[in-house]
Amino acid sequence: MELSHINEQGRARMVDVTEKTVTCRTATAAATVNVSPATMEIIRTGGIKKGDVLSVAQVAGIMAAKKTSEIIPMCHPLMLTSVDISFDLTDTQIMIRATVKCKGVTGVEMEALTAASTAALTVYDMCKAVQRDITVTDIMLLHKDGGKSGEFLR
Amino acid sequence: MELSHINEQGRARMVDVTEKTVTCRTATAAATVNVSPATMEIIRTGGIKKGDVLSVAQVAGIMAAKKTSEIIPMCHPLMLTSVDISFDLTDTQIMIRATVKCKGVTGVEMEALTAASTAALTVYDMCKAVQRDITVTDIMLLHKDGGKSGEFLR
Amino acid sequence: MELSHINEQGRARMVDVTEKTVTCRTATAAATVNVSPATMEIIRTGGIKKGDVLSVAQVAGIMAAKKTSEIIPMCHPLMLTSVDISFDLTDTQIMIRATVKCKGVTGVEMEALTAASTAALTVYDMCKAVQRDITVTDIMLLHKDGGKSGEFLR
Amino acid sequence: MELSHINEQGRARMVDVTEKTVTCRTATAAATVNVSPATMEIIRTGGIKKGDVLSVAQVAGIMAAKKTSEIIPMCHPLMLTSVDISFDLTDTQIMIRATVKCKGVTGVEMEALTAASTAALTVYDMCKAVQRDITVTDIMLLHKDGGKSGEFLR
Amino acid sequence: MELSHINEQGRARMVDVTEKTVTCRTATAAATVNVSPATMEIIRTGGIKKGDVLSVAQVAGIMAAKKTSEIIPMCHPLMLTSVDISFDLTDTQIMIRATVKCKGVTGVEMEALTAASTAALTVYDMCKAVQRDITVTDIMLLHKDGGKSGEFLR
Amino acid sequence: MELSHINEQGRARMVDVTEKTVTCRTATAAATVNVSPATMEIIRTGGIKKGDVLSVAQVAGIMAAKKTSEIIPMCHPLMLTSVDISFDLTDTQIMIRATVKCKGVTGVEMEALTAASTAALTVYDMCKAVQRDITVTDIMLLHKDGGKSGEFLR
Repeated sequence: MELSHINEQGRARMVDVTEKTVTCRTATAAATVNVSPATMEIIRTGGIKKGDVLSVAQVAGIMAAKKTSEIIPMCHPLMLTSVDISFDLTDTQIMIRATVKCKGVTGVEMEALTAASTAALTVYDMCKAVQRDITVTDIMLLHKDGGKSGEFLR
Repeated sequence: MELSHINEQGRARMVDVTEKTVTCRTATAAATVNVSPATMEIIRTGGIKKGDVLSVAQVAGIMAAKKTSEIIPMCHPLMLTSVDISFDLTDTQIMIRATVKCKGVTGVEMEALTAASTAALTVYDMCKAVQRDITVTDIMLLHKDGGKSGEFLR
Repeated sequence: MELSHINEQGRARMVDVTEKTVTCRTATAAATVNVSPATMEIIRTGGIKKGDVLSVAQVAGIMAAKKTSEIIPMCHPLMLTSVDISFDLTDTQIMIRATVKCKGVTGVEMEALTAASTAALTVYDMCKAVQRDITVTDIMLLHKDGGKSGEFLR
Repeated sequence: MELSHINEQGRARMVDVTEKTVTCRTATAAATVNVSPATMEIIRTGGIKKGDVLSVAQVAGIMAAKKTSEIIPMCHPLMLTSVDISFDLTDTQIMIRATVKCKGVTGVEMEALTAASTAALTVYDMCKAVQRDITVTDIMLLHKDGGKSGEFLR
Repeated sequence: MELSHINEQGRARMVDVTEKTVTCRTATAAATVNVSPATMEIIRTGGIKKGDVLSVAQVAGIMAAKKTSEIIPMCHPLMLTSVDISFDLTDTQIMIRATVKCKGVTGVEMEALTAASTAALTVYDMCKAVQRDITVTDIMLLHKDGGKSGEFLR
Repeated sequence: MELSHINEQGRARMVDVTEKTVTCRTATAAATVNVSPATMEIIRTGGIKKGDVLSVAQVAGIMAAKKTSEIIPMCHPLMLTSVDISFDLTDTQIMIRATVKCKGVTGVEMEALTAASTAALTVYDMCKAVQRDITVTDIMLLHKDGGKSGEFLR
């Protein structure tokens, strides 16, 4: 088995997808931010308007999805047609899900992963003044569909 | 306790650091990529030149550190003076450490976290054709120094 | 009536346009820069080469049109196929018109508006040393065509 | 009187500010979005969470302030130390104020103007599906301080 | 003969390609970095891992290809489907070749030229501490195919 | 002699300049665009307004200088305080000179080289419809001053 991103000189390339078929692609990725109960309480109530931290994280994730091919060197530029992000909160976890779609020749899993992890880091940034040991874990693909390799469901 | 990123109207702002003192700041952050032993074997040997996946991840992480204030909405722009990234490999884990420095009025932990997580996602991207269920975990601050809040060491 | 940019959790999303039809889209937007007669005289003659301020504004507007989806958070990325900007000068007004085209699934009015307003702010920037109270007004859509909602003509 | 942005060959340059003194700079700029009473009602209540359109506009304006030197060709890069945006709503107008600060050798009025106008265009973008003839007017500097040219107050 | 990039007002425009046909496009461009034999020896052996300078240059060139429409003002945005870069070394020259492909309405020669010249400048940057008079020469198109104007082969 | 950009693991890093002294830095770089006499005639007269190709190239070069640390992976971000570009024309050559200044801890030669080469590629782009075999040559540093390594004058 070989890494398709490595060329004949043993260095990286952007894989040739010129001949691949345009299909509808979708991918959902997750990321989890782990905070203390005290921090979660502040996220829920600390802003005058409930949940503002999450609003900023949402915008950050959506904008990051569009920047994926600038951030991940071997990613192809893609014309995303949909980005949506949701948050589920427990007492100590913010579970983020990002779903991205496009019509194109390559999948959108890196876009979904970039959206989820950027939303997570944005939550971290806005809460780091009140808790210094926040972690981000479980960045993973949940679902992917539309390409030659078939559906993936974790 | 309040979130400093929330303004009087309850919406986000970029916190005012105009009056803070310029000091040398440093931060080290970590991220872990979890792969199968088979994938790790390919990372180690699959390119003609050993370790090329990690070279690309390194460049990606360094460039992402410089983009942090474009990606994380409330981050202040900073003139980074050093970015270095190292990799430690076990049979199933790539442990990434990113150390960032600057002389400035705010810390560089978001830059270190962005560098580490981007390097991790780049490894994911270059290996996803050979393994579909890679995860990224343990994105966290390891060390921080130079600001008013004192040293942090996990 | 609902805002299509708001998702089920009440936060912003990039609207799903995956199933929309690709058609030729065009939009023309306007912006007006209001200056004193003295400033206008300098714009007309102050550079060694007549109109250089407008040349820079033109390039700025064209480049900004291409950046629209990076600047306006919920805008879809689009492959613009044409951007053109024109200027009409009176004694105290620079009236800017930007026309943008693409073949795509969403309209290009935000691209035309971003081009026109960026060209206007660039004129402002290059003249602010000679006049401190310049204003930009009348940023608006003049014409739009090619989408499901039909032609719009102000 | 001459335009400082024009060089000896009659073309644009980025003005030399190498010898200027570093001081604290602040600027406040305004922009107004004009909507129908029906659209304003939707902005106030249409999202599940009140005011979400404004949250997105706020993030967009803050991020645009940081991008100013990429958008306005002759602007110097600056290390912004504060960006804050507020909204005042009447029945038909959203009045936006953006205040930007930095310690640097040039003023931040273009950053404040870019923040205000981008926030305005973001409101436009999120409401254009419900009203097609929104306009943005009165983009102007309200206040500026900290440079050699003294305080400006409209 | 006229420059298609100049509009009726004598200023630049992004040429209208809305009606052009989508075809597979490919272009190969070259750039040469001229170094001393001593510098070449360091490039070949100076890093612990042979050729690391070239790995960084490769990533830089690929990422720059994707940024072309942001850097060259009148270039159309394009969805690149392949970018590959190779290096041939003599005692005093690094000859860089960049090949870019897309399916689109305009050619990719500017993307190939931008990739090659950015890779060249990256080699320069990483070696400038050991040699101050490096030059980059012979930036040129080697081959182009897929458009209305037919094949070009130098 | 060693490449300072290579870290202990043999991979690239952004060199640590935290402890270096802030001084005024200046650098001038050159690039030459080689065209046919017919193309040069069109550049001189082909636009309605003489020299518009060069106006666009000038803006492109200035904006590229500000983007250098995004394009060249190991470049430090710098707060440029001046960018100026001039053109000298013979019958078959456009000789471009870019001068960049900043107050900072590292030199600005990469910024000057990036400005000059981007201006050259922009001329190429705007003329490629009338001549297919344009070349860019002689990208080189002409002068550099302000750092620890002393003045450099070619």
